[in-house]
Amino acid sequence: MTFRSICAVKGVKTFGMKEGKFGLTLIRAAGTAAGVFTQNLVKAAPIELMREQIKKGTMEAVIANSGCANAYTGKRGYNDAIEMTTFAGSALNVDPDQVGVASTGVIGRYLDLPLIQRQCEEVARKIDRTPEAESLAAEAIMTTDTFPKHALVQKETFTIGGITKGSGMIAPNMGTMLAFIYTDADIGAKTLSQILKKATKRSFNRVVVDGDMSTNDIALCTATGESGKVNPVEFSHALEECCRSLAQQIAADGEGATKLIEVTIRGAQKEEEAAKIARTIIESPLVKTAVYGEDPNWGRVVAAAGRAGIEFDPNAVSLWISDGNQRYPLVKSGEIIADLKMAKAAMHGKKVIFVLDLARGKEEATAWGCDLTERYVEINGRYTT
Amino acid sequence: MTFRSICAVKGVKTFGMKEGKFGLTLIRAAGTAAGVFTQNLVKAAPIELMREQIKKGTMEAVIANSGCANAYTGKRGYNDAIEMTTFAGSALNVDPDQVGVASTGVIGRYLDLPLIQRQCEEVARKIDRTPEAESLAAEAIMTTDTFPKHALVQKETFTIGGITKGSGMIAPNMGTMLAFIYTDADIGAKTLSQILKKATKRSFNRVVVDGDMSTNDIALCTATGESGKVNPVEFSHALEECCRSLAQQIAADGEGATKLIEVTIRGAQKEEEAAKIARTIIESPLVKTAVYGEDPNWGRVVAAAGRAGIEFDPNAVSLWISDGNQRYPLVKSGEIIADLKMAKAAMHGKKVIFVLDLARGKEEATAWGCDLTERYVEINGRYTT
Repeated sequence: MTFRSICAVKGVKTFGMKEGKFGLTLIRAAGTAAGVFTQNLVKAAPIELMREQIKKGTMEAVIANSGCANAYTGKRGYNDAIEMTTFAGSALNVDPDQVGVASTGVIGRYLDLPLIQRQCEEVARKIDRTPEAESLAAEAIMTTDTFPKHALVQKETFTIGGITKGSGMIAPNMGTMLAFIYTDADIGAKTLSQILKKATKRSFNRVVVDGDMSTNDIALCTATGESGKVNPVEFSHALEECCRSLAQQIAADGEGATKLIEVTIRGAQKEEEAAKIARTIIESPLVKTAVYGEDPNWGRVVAAAGRAGIEFDPNAVSLWISDGNQRYPLVKSGEIIADLKMAKAAMHGKKVIFVLDLARGKEEATAWGCDLTERYVEINGRYTT
Repeated sequence: MTFRSICAVKGVKTFGMKEGKFGLTLIRAAGTAAGVFTQNLVKAAPIELMREQIKKGTMEAVIANSGCANAYTGKRGYNDAIEMTTFAGSALNVDPDQVGVASTGVIGRYLDLPLIQRQCEEVARKIDRTPEAESLAAEAIMTTDTFPKHALVQKETFTIGGITKGSGMIAPNMGTMLAFIYTDADIGAKTLSQILKKATKRSFNRVVVDGDMSTNDIALCTATGESGKVNPVEFSHALEECCRSLAQQIAADGEGATKLIEVTIRGAQKEEEAAKIARTIIESPLVKTAVYGEDPNWGRVVAAAGRAGIEFDPNAVSLWISDGNQRYPLVKSGEIIADLKMAKAAMHGKKVIFVLDLARGKEEATAWGCDLTERYVEINGRYTT
């Protein structure tokens, strides 16, 4: 059997089903647990609940639904989120306090609890450790995603697998990114939390589809411990690799996207400064439309960097464009050396990379996004009540 | 003669001409002067020059060209900007040090100085105080603007008139907003500068078309003094009114725009906090596409507010939608009371207004923007080298 993600991890069972817009996924795997959550002030009910729940540092199962975000639903929504953990707890025979819960879908509507209960019972009966099970699990949490997203990192002594959906506030009223990551490494909850935070900062937090931050963003990681102790540094790199793969898939699947954009800022004084500039460029509608039109308007990249609020000398920077294979210089130490024909040729593929060197320090950061197309406007403007 | 803007101010003469993409405007009016400039780290050469020049606090003329932004052009660009002031100085017989200069157009290209010199001489010969002259002046600085922008505020004791072009980084490689404002009030340079800064903060700085801040943004104000002393408070309100009118015209003329969006945040603790939330909502591609599609997805407005980085209680807010005539409640103190049919009806016009009350304080702020359409993507993505 060839696994693509979470079922490659020993001790993980899952299943998922979808009926129209309404999907449900269960994942069963006991271990230490950590989570990171949206920083939006407006938090969905399951997020409010999980922020408390995760403090225990252990988890035995996850229930996630698509179609309704259970966001902006007040006290009733909070109770509904608890109810979801009860359904999963009873169907899988685990303590509801040990069940993680996540939702994605329309904001401002209440959950259809009878539907969720029925789906939960059906999915629980079929829960399994097979390639088909992990595929259905990844598909059931999709909203406007055009493909399911799996990542797998296999090291000599341990394995990390993850599934994810969505990106930013990409869909009409839809909430966001959900990521469920599993490993057989034996790692304490506190360390796991630190490593997950760092990996998230360098992956999911550096994906921008349209700059909107969802009310429902969540990434959960469970470590079953079946493979024994691991080197924390090696584990940290592997988890980051897994998250980065998932993040790139999210960016490539942005609504209406035709190209993945990757921006690396080098030569910064601080990593977070590099990240802020990279995000500002990735978010710029002018950069996004230029990439879509394969127009090597590098001036837009420099101008976007200039408004990121980070100090640098525009006359000292160097800039390159690349398709992932060959790299073409556009600006060298502030001097324009762009061969626009070559630069345009570098934009024909599915991936467009900009590298900007600020010549101020040794730190760097990379962010991912996608182009802005007529299709994005169509998807987000034509959704009517 | 019916003036629409700057020629209503005694002592102002102007003219403009355009040849293809390349336009040139001269304005002749001596007085105290103040300016505000882009905060983008990447500043065009004329901006670098004017930041120094304005310190004198007086100005006798302005020269502005469209078609080439003279941005990212280094030392040569700076000398070219000085050269423009020399052309205008010699054509109008004023000290070049007393000439304001501004450019808008493609970034990363050098000025065609012989063209500018020829146009400058021709325009100087025709400089006049007529409705036609102010019209041509406003038209000559247009780039992708679809209409020239004039504003006029007439008070009992003084007059303020202004012309402007563009908005944000709205066009392919194009730079920005230029605004030239004139008054016959007698007002010192220092006071004028303070009042202009405040007015700009509440008008031009609250217009968002696509969030990109140009390398060339400039607003210059000259006070000829011919009408004598004025009440500074009254003048301040009048200048803000003039700038607000120009700013709204910029927003309404955003690339591909079909609707003006106005967002007012009330009940904030600080005006700047209200402004930051208003800007975040106006910038949100999801809000912009929803307005375009006349989709009353108010959840997007609240979600955008939640990620502005300003503290408030999402469960205490109230939200209204309006077409400028009638106002419909969507959320009242955190409770959803939206009649989506009525809300949708309020989105049919050319103007869509959201009012969000944070219920935390007494400050408020308004920002303006426009919807995001397929046409924006087309304009900005299909520009090829």
